[in-house]
Amino acid sequence: MIAEIIAVGTELLLGDVLDTNSRYLSQQLAARGIALCHRQTVGDNPARLEAALTLALSRAELVLLCGGLGPTPDDLTKEIAAKTLGVELCLHQPSLDRILDYYARSGRMMPKSNQKQAMLPISGGVVFPNDHGTAPGCAMEKGGKRVLLFPGPPRELIPMFESYAAPYLDALADGVLRSHYVRVFGVGESAAAEKAAAWLQSENPTVAPYAKDGEMYFRVTARGDTAAEADARCQPTIVELLSLFGDAVYGVDVDSLEQAVVDGLKVAGKTVATAESCTGGLIAERITSVPGASAVFGCGVAAYNAEIKHRVLGVPQDTIDRTGTVSAETATAMAQGVRALSGADFGVAVTGAAGPDPCEGHPVGTVFVACSSERGTEVRALSLGSRDRAVIRTLAASHALDMVRRALAIGQ
Amino acid sequence: MIAEIIAVGTELLLGDVLDTNSRYLSQQLAARGIALCHRQTVGDNPARLEAALTLALSRAELVLLCGGLGPTPDDLTKEIAAKTLGVELCLHQPSLDRILDYYARSGRMMPKSNQKQAMLPISGGVVFPNDHGTAPGCAMEKGGKRVLLFPGPPRELIPMFESYAAPYLDALADGVLRSHYVRVFGVGESAAAEKAAAWLQSENPTVAPYAKDGEMYFRVTARGDTAAEADARCQPTIVELLSLFGDAVYGVDVDSLEQAVVDGLKVAGKTVATAESCTGGLIAERITSVPGASAVFGCGVAAYNAEIKHRVLGVPQDTIDRTGTVSAETATAMAQGVRALSGADFGVAVTGAAGPDPCEGHPVGTVFVACSSERGTEVRALSLGSRDRAVIRTLAASHALDMVRRALAIGQ
Repeated sequence: MIAEIIAVGTELLLGDVLDTNSRYLSQQLAARGIALCHRQTVGDNPARLEAALTLALSRAELVLLCGGLGPTPDDLTKEIAAKTLGVELCLHQPSLDRILDYYARSGRMMPKSNQKQAMLPISGGVVFPNDHGTAPGCAMEKGGKRVLLFPGPPRELIPMFESYAAPYLDALADGVLRSHYVRVFGVGESAAAEKAAAWLQSENPTVAPYAKDGEMYFRVTARGDTAAEADARCQPTIVELLSLFGDAVYGVDVDSLEQAVVDGLKVAGKTVATAESCTGGLIAERITSVPGASAVFGCGVAAYNAEIKHRVLGVPQDTIDRTGTVSAETATAMAQGVRALSGADFGVAVTGAAGPDPCEGHPVGTVFVACSSERGTEVRALSLGSRDRAVIRTLAASHALDMVRRALAIGQ
Repeated sequence: MIAEIIAVGTELLLGDVLDTNSRYLSQQLAARGIALCHRQTVGDNPARLEAALTLALSRAELVLLCGGLGPTPDDLTKEIAAKTLGVELCLHQPSLDRILDYYARSGRMMPKSNQKQAMLPISGGVVFPNDHGTAPGCAMEKGGKRVLLFPGPPRELIPMFESYAAPYLDALADGVLRSHYVRVFGVGESAAAEKAAAWLQSENPTVAPYAKDGEMYFRVTARGDTAAEADARCQPTIVELLSLFGDAVYGVDVDSLEQAVVDGLKVAGKTVATAESCTGGLIAERITSVPGASAVFGCGVAAYNAEIKHRVLGVPQDTIDRTGTVSAETATAMAQGVRALSGADFGVAVTGAAGPDPCEGHPVGTVFVACSSERGTEVRALSLGSRDRAVIRTLAASHALDMVRRALAIGQ
């Protein structure tokens, strides 16, 4: 089966929005062994959208469209797709009820313009409910061609795909495809790719490396007649990756480093507290982004100046005077201080120069991360280089989470 | 002038790589007032690349290609482009010398395969040197059409564009295009679009609404012979938007709500401190994401359980016992507490149920936001509905920032 993706939106052509949807949908197609030969992007222009869809239908059986399902007059993707494919749109009462309910729950009246979002292909189609917004998606089917429509916001598109479009596509595909994710922190991308080069030619399972914000993961995907068979085909490769990367692996099939830390703390019955200078609350934010984090996290302090470090976290004034706020000693005292303040089992702290300017004479990227527990305090001194402020903050927070994860592993 | 972008690479169609180049090039074209109506993505497939380029040349005068300039046999973008446009490639000795030198500097011999990277359009073209890699880019010109080629890695493409392609395009462009952004918080997307409907048909300036995470902005873009003339064309529309949305406008040409808050605090010579329960550090993280935030922010406390709210922030035990941790009273005490703890001019606090489960009997989306200053404490009670945890946290943090912004405006 050959597929094509069309991303719709003038904001994409103006460069106002980065198109992450096309990549996500590409990955989903690749994971199902569906060939993708072309992607197109067009603006909110009916004639050009119709021409793009006609072209796509001339060379693919399956066309995925994203964007342009909103309530405004320039959101026309669904209407154009129905016209081009020759499918009729009717009022879909369950979808209208969901939209009315969506507004009612936030105490608002539905604007009249939203009603058109409930016009859907009732015969010759399947409706994909939107659990995170008002615009339903759908599949339109005619003459052996299928056109799938998704809303533009990734936070609506991704859950809709997972809940409704994935099963729809799986039913079209041959056999069952299963993916597992081996997640690694602290290994450079080139080094990891070199280490794993042998697998990149493998066909069943396939192995694909991904890198983002200093983290890496390997997606291991196998096809089988059953899920169990596909899983079994993945297993030997997962075991080899675990042995290759050792304790740099922080989890298999976990969502993130913070998820691994929260899970690990829960299993150990331990708690963590955070003291943050240059990350300014990011570690606490990442930990509490995990549902149920309250079982393992009670207290985080963003101590963004020397006075708060001293007065709230109890960093000795002498330490600050002698070593400055960007130092291993200050990081250590911050971690110990927040542990004492909160009564948590682990105290983790970050201080450094996130940029754009140097801090107390330290070049941008100089960061100290400390992790304190009843077994003592460990410090990592990092030189993260002159990267973006946001990247340095993310890397520093990831190192802090990684230290907690490793401290937990030692404690087991 | 109409342009089109073609991104080349099988890794894009597999979803292994996120296409940031197309967005970057789109922004560069928009900034120059060059209309972009289509983008395409194709794999490393000669026939499909040739068809894509032929299609692009049939509807655009300027085609930008990125990717496929590497030394391997499947890197064929330049050869296909030369063939399609009818331009001859010759050995460009200065480029070959640069590639040889690039290898020599890292103590390696140039592999023979790299020699083809120095084959360039000497007549009917312009060479764009690559200051960060081996593959030169170029512009090919024939019969009123121009095809520009760039290497795929963004760290090579972006500097090459800035140094060599930008001046090339500036010399072609007609007039100047300027954009301004009017940012609004607290107005629903549909309601805002209805209010602003009259402008959406406007042509010079054009007005485009965008919504994200409960915030909206309007991009106002005009063309003129000079920047001043284009700015002057935008001005009346900006003034009308300001009057239409009143104090819901938090800024014109500012990056974000947190940027507006940091800027506003700096101007007023005031400071803020944060006390966060369900947002868990997000407000502090957003404030400190702004470079230079240390001038206005020193202290944030993530108080994720009742004990820390009482012991660190000084919320009276009686308040917690009587009203629970999710209440206007607790939010008030948290805001006052962190203001007292830090000595900041403003204390802002959030407590609520971010989900996925209800909290102390309060449904998901129940959030109290308090802002305390020498003029007293104000509380917002929010019902954000049963949305995603991440959305509720973002909205709650935005409301907190909005309260500080409004408190500052009153204080002026």
